[in-house]
Amino acid sequence: MNPQRYQLDDLVQARAVAVVGASQDPTRIGGRPIAFLKDAGFAGAIYPVNAKYPEVQGLRAYADLDGVPGPVDVAIISVPARDVIAAVAACGRKGVKGAIVFSSGFAEVGAPGRAQQDDLARVAEQAGVRIIGPNCQGLVALHQRLNLSFSSAFIDPGAPGAVGLVVQSGAVGGMLAALLRERGVGFSYWISAGNEADVAVPECIEFFARDPETRIVGAYVESIRDGRRLLAAVAAARAAGKPVVILRAGRSAQSARAAASHTGAIAAEDTVTAALLAEAGATDARDVEELLDYVYTFARTPRPAGRRVGILSNSGGLGVIMADTCAELGLELPPLSASLQQELAAFLPAFGATGNPVDVTAQLLADATLLPRSLAVMLGSREIDVLVVMLGMVNRLYPVETIVDDLLRTRAETGKPVLVSWVAGSPEGAVAINAAGLPVFTDSTRCLKALAALLSLAGETRAPAPAAAAPRLGLHDIERLLGGSEPGPRDELLSKALLRAAGVRAVAERLVTSPEEAVAAADDLGYPVAVKVCAAALPHKSEHGLVRLGLTDAAAVARACADLRARLRAAMPSVPIRGLLVQQMAPRGIEMVIGAKRDPTFGPIVMAGLGGVFVEYMKDVAFGSAPVTHEQAFGMIRSLRAYPLLTGARGQAEADQDALAGAIVAISQLAVDGERHIREIDVNPLIVLPPGEGAVAVDGLVVVDALPATSLSARALLRER
Amino acid sequence: MNPQRYQLDDLVQARAVAVVGASQDPTRIGGRPIAFLKDAGFAGAIYPVNAKYPEVQGLRAYADLDGVPGPVDVAIISVPARDVIAAVAACGRKGVKGAIVFSSGFAEVGAPGRAQQDDLARVAEQAGVRIIGPNCQGLVALHQRLNLSFSSAFIDPGAPGAVGLVVQSGAVGGMLAALLRERGVGFSYWISAGNEADVAVPECIEFFARDPETRIVGAYVESIRDGRRLLAAVAAARAAGKPVVILRAGRSAQSARAAASHTGAIAAEDTVTAALLAEAGATDARDVEELLDYVYTFARTPRPAGRRVGILSNSGGLGVIMADTCAELGLELPPLSASLQQELAAFLPAFGATGNPVDVTAQLLADATLLPRSLAVMLGSREIDVLVVMLGMVNRLYPVETIVDDLLRTRAETGKPVLVSWVAGSPEGAVAINAAGLPVFTDSTRCLKALAALLSLAGETRAPAPAAAAPRLGLHDIERLLGGSEPGPRDELLSKALLRAAGVRAVAERLVTSPEEAVAAADDLGYPVAVKVCAAALPHKSEHGLVRLGLTDAAAVARACADLRARLRAAMPSVPIRGLLVQQMAPRGIEMVIGAKRDPTFGPIVMAGLGGVFVEYMKDVAFGSAPVTHEQAFGMIRSLRAYPLLTGARGQAEADQDALAGAIVAISQLAVDGERHIREIDVNPLIVLPPGEGAVAVDGLVVVDALPATSLSARALLRER
Repeated sequence: MNPQRYQLDDLVQARAVAVVGASQDPTRIGGRPIAFLKDAGFAGAIYPVNAKYPEVQGLRAYADLDGVPGPVDVAIISVPARDVIAAVAACGRKGVKGAIVFSSGFAEVGAPGRAQQDDLARVAEQAGVRIIGPNCQGLVALHQRLNLSFSSAFIDPGAPGAVGLVVQSGAVGGMLAALLRERGVGFSYWISAGNEADVAVPECIEFFARDPETRIVGAYVESIRDGRRLLAAVAAARAAGKPVVILRAGRSAQSARAAASHTGAIAAEDTVTAALLAEAGATDARDVEELLDYVYTFARTPRPAGRRVGILSNSGGLGVIMADTCAELGLELPPLSASLQQELAAFLPAFGATGNPVDVTAQLLADATLLPRSLAVMLGSREIDVLVVMLGMVNRLYPVETIVDDLLRTRAETGKPVLVSWVAGSPEGAVAINAAGLPVFTDSTRCLKALAALLSLAGETRAPAPAAAAPRLGLHDIERLLGGSEPGPRDELLSKALLRAAGVRAVAERLVTSPEEAVAAADDLGYPVAVKVCAAALPHKSEHGLVRLGLTDAAAVARACADLRARLRAAMPSVPIRGLLVQQMAPRGIEMVIGAKRDPTFGPIVMAGLGGVFVEYMKDVAFGSAPVTHEQAFGMIRSLRAYPLLTGARGQAEADQDALAGAIVAISQLAVDGERHIREIDVNPLIVLPPGEGAVAVDGLVVVDALPATSLSARALLRER
Repeated sequence: MNPQRYQLDDLVQARAVAVVGASQDPTRIGGRPIAFLKDAGFAGAIYPVNAKYPEVQGLRAYADLDGVPGPVDVAIISVPARDVIAAVAACGRKGVKGAIVFSSGFAEVGAPGRAQQDDLARVAEQAGVRIIGPNCQGLVALHQRLNLSFSSAFIDPGAPGAVGLVVQSGAVGGMLAALLRERGVGFSYWISAGNEADVAVPECIEFFARDPETRIVGAYVESIRDGRRLLAAVAAARAAGKPVVILRAGRSAQSARAAASHTGAIAAEDTVTAALLAEAGATDARDVEELLDYVYTFARTPRPAGRRVGILSNSGGLGVIMADTCAELGLELPPLSASLQQELAAFLPAFGATGNPVDVTAQLLADATLLPRSLAVMLGSREIDVLVVMLGMVNRLYPVETIVDDLLRTRAETGKPVLVSWVAGSPEGAVAINAAGLPVFTDSTRCLKALAALLSLAGETRAPAPAAAAPRLGLHDIERLLGGSEPGPRDELLSKALLRAAGVRAVAERLVTSPEEAVAAADDLGYPVAVKVCAAALPHKSEHGLVRLGLTDAAAVARACADLRARLRAAMPSVPIRGLLVQQMAPRGIEMVIGAKRDPTFGPIVMAGLGGVFVEYMKDVAFGSAPVTHEQAFGMIRSLRAYPLLTGARGQAEADQDALAGAIVAISQLAVDGERHIREIDVNPLIVLPPGEGAVAVDGLVVVDALPATSLSARALLRER
């Protein structure tokens, strides 16, 4: 038994490795890691474990782990699924820090396998053994020459490098490894997480964040189990100055169906996941090519100091096409100053172009001075932060070595990133440019997408994630305001009382039970008023015709009460009704919808959008991981496409954005404080008044669905104490 | 002088070619076409024209064109700009049908060059000589072995094929030619249109549309001069069953700036151009790679009968990623039926997947029967119209010949298209699959984008463009209703009178000049009414506070009149006012904006969108080339993102879509009938009532700006007679 909980840091420093289920055949799953370790020149001990042979691949073999003479740091488990738990128990007895379980037949094959995997996780935890897998392709630590994988992608592991990659599919990971190595990009670590019985993607990213060899993080993710930990891990890596590129699969309904059959996991709602990961600082890759291109570019270039892009091409047409793509990607292509254009015009052909893109023309190939002179002017200027060199149809007659020399020299002199787009040129040219350590693309749009990803890192210094906010409401307050923890929707009065306690302003209102009380309440509140049915069972009052608006005198109020009662009696006689709400009519303003929910993956999240069609048809909604800060709430507001409507555009009154942000903050904090009980909060509409006048909730709904304490995050539990 | 106007058909059948400015050096501009023609085995006569030599590249040379003994069909002009006009005049004397002008120094170098180009066009027209260029890289007719280019891309022209390509940049065209040839795709024609002094892109597409050798049309366009002719040419090609792929450059403001410096042309508004080209049936390519991929795929596959996509992969993860991309591209990936899944499950490994994507698993490489059996089941079914075969990391050990055989056989047996995505596999494998005539991609997203382009052609039969609609209003009616042709905005009363005459219903209204008249008008129209200032100089009345709405009695009307008069006197005493308009208040309904304008490139166009923020912030607008048919108007309406609001969603009343379409048709027809005078029509809002109740214009504005007759299209002139 081992009381200590080991980290990946411990595993990758292994000095002794056992392979349980070792094979004589170096091409089989149980044989490959032994061959790989020997090929890589691993300096530590390798102990094949296999009762059938005295020797495996020239090494002394042992009948069981207990019989291995020295200590063992890491064990590879490559035995049938039914024998895995016993093998892990043996690891515990031996003091093994981590077991890498290649064996399949666990959660990926359905319910019985899932149960077996849960058993495995429990046994491993009790034994103090960390598990990678099961159903994984292993871990490769290239700087340590520790190749604990059977992926054929690592037959030639390539030189170690700065990329830490973690994948939830060994096959996809193998392809990524092969394709990156083909481009000369080296790994620090490659981790196939498999079914994640224990070590999961977030923990790997946390490890990459603190590992000094890793400068760039990549991840392939099919399912996110602990969304909050993932967000925190991404934020930690970004705070350490490391970009994190994440390729998520299973974003759409149809692909989630495929992913479910592939990994047995359910995908979270994509827009929410995408928004939260972006906010945490992850770079989103939408396919294998984007992940490759981004990691490759980050590995190959210095970070740009700013976002101003220059394009230099040998074809005016290609320059214009690239400028179009830049516009589509939101990349800024500033026109060059008159003086810089004069400098260029002094030596460029008259039919070239000196704006931006700069067209050196096809003369580039005839006059070898044009490229270096143009490079010096453009990269040497203060007007450009990064340069794309677009070279079309450069054939074997123009020596690519001079291009490489020119590019490397100017890059070194200016410290600015240079990306090369090599279209319809000789294949050897692209190979030579890549071999020189410059990022080169044979697809100009992929080049510009990689540039866009690079620029998203430009000049950015990401602060570490803020410390948890202090709760505003205690659990007992919330339980009291909710009228207990019975599941289901709360009526409008209760819901708004809770919202008010959380700091959200709401329209003044009175609960009444007779027309006479209603009129008295209206007289008191001041006309016009609204009268609504107040019933927990009827959260969608308007759709049932249970709301009367704009009542301007006592008679109208009395009539409205009679109407609503008649309607209730006729249509829903058995629904329990708490009474009628008499409310001040809200002043005119901009209608927003603010919501929060407890997401199964990410915990409490908050959303905001303009009311009505904007949310429903335009999907113009912003998300944040709750609680959000005031600044983050502002960021959410500004990210809306309809944001100009809040700034006084279209003759609309300007809106009190500060109050709106305050409401978002308060609702997000309520979602966190009440995480144990509150499944959903819906404020619709929140009327945002002109600056200085605040924002007021007209309707509110809180839905309770208590979580067992075991489902709460550690942070939430801590908060509740 | 030649009275006949020759067509491209005449030029490409040339039996005798003269090269004016012929060079001895086969690598120089004036020498290359001679070398190319000889290399290609051109069977006709080649006449070098150069006073300096008796012989050029082994052929008898002539001092001038007049001295050439036989007839000459086509002349290449490769002389300094100042000598081009004389050379073209000589062509006229000689009865040359077409001159291909390589020479630069015309519109691309600015105003003096532009003037010289206009002179060239005039001389050529008088001489009856068609011009390609100037500043072009020529024309290649591969089936005729007629290589009239100096582009180094045609040093090896490749085998003739079915792709007709026309380009406005010879450099981009050369790259496209090289890249397509590298993929084994052959051209019927390659035309570098240069500055388009005469022959322009639309005429080339018309030629490709009727040419029997051309099955696929590609175009690279930097500026569109005659937009209507381009749309008609695209429609003609599509009606002939030929896809038309267009790569447009200069879409954005920043790239248009670059394009302007490159070609001297101004780009049309991109959203309009994109919408009209799509409506005409063009396939939009956004970069060089898309154009290549689409043309390649169209050349390599049969047209699919439907849009149901199947994916077969050897990696579950890659399948899921592709399913994501399919969802993003709007491609339908139907789940396979239970019986088909059973058929697959019978032989696939248990850890595979039989839904869609089908995951054959990495076992594919170990068991050579898995691929052919899966192909037979999937392509043989009635559930899939097209199949993507995603093969990851297929190495040299698995014989690619068997993959090729399996794919070709199944494709032949089923007639269904198959696209291959070959990721991280051996480069030779991709080459072999391509060589077998199958479309293969090493980038899975490019594969799926090409598939999306292919599916946009699926099962489609495009009717030829409809015949021109009969005018509803004659020119004289329009002039009368506009109160003459003086330029500027018309007041609301005049504007709506014209709209009513054109068939657009508008709210009932009376022009009044005193409060008493106003009250009488309101009594007559029925309350509530609106009162507005009617003045041509004040088209934006509301913004000036010159509108009073919802007046419910005579006193309110009188008060409104007094208010408006006071306001006018105070704020704009010198603006000429026609009077006040008393209008019925429009019933409640959905507010639309319908507009039309005379586009400099495309002539009259019509636009429609939902009122307010939808148009302004969401850019949710549909465009049509006027006049539109009722069916086209419906298509515009349905293409709006906010379309659900017209169908009764969100508790909105359903809208009279038929009446809305009718209004769009009527406004589009008015824009065409009044093309000579009307620059702009703006109906904002048009209130669309519930089905059967129609649609009614509440405000309308017509702006006049008379065109000289010479600027009208031939069709417009014809209509006016």
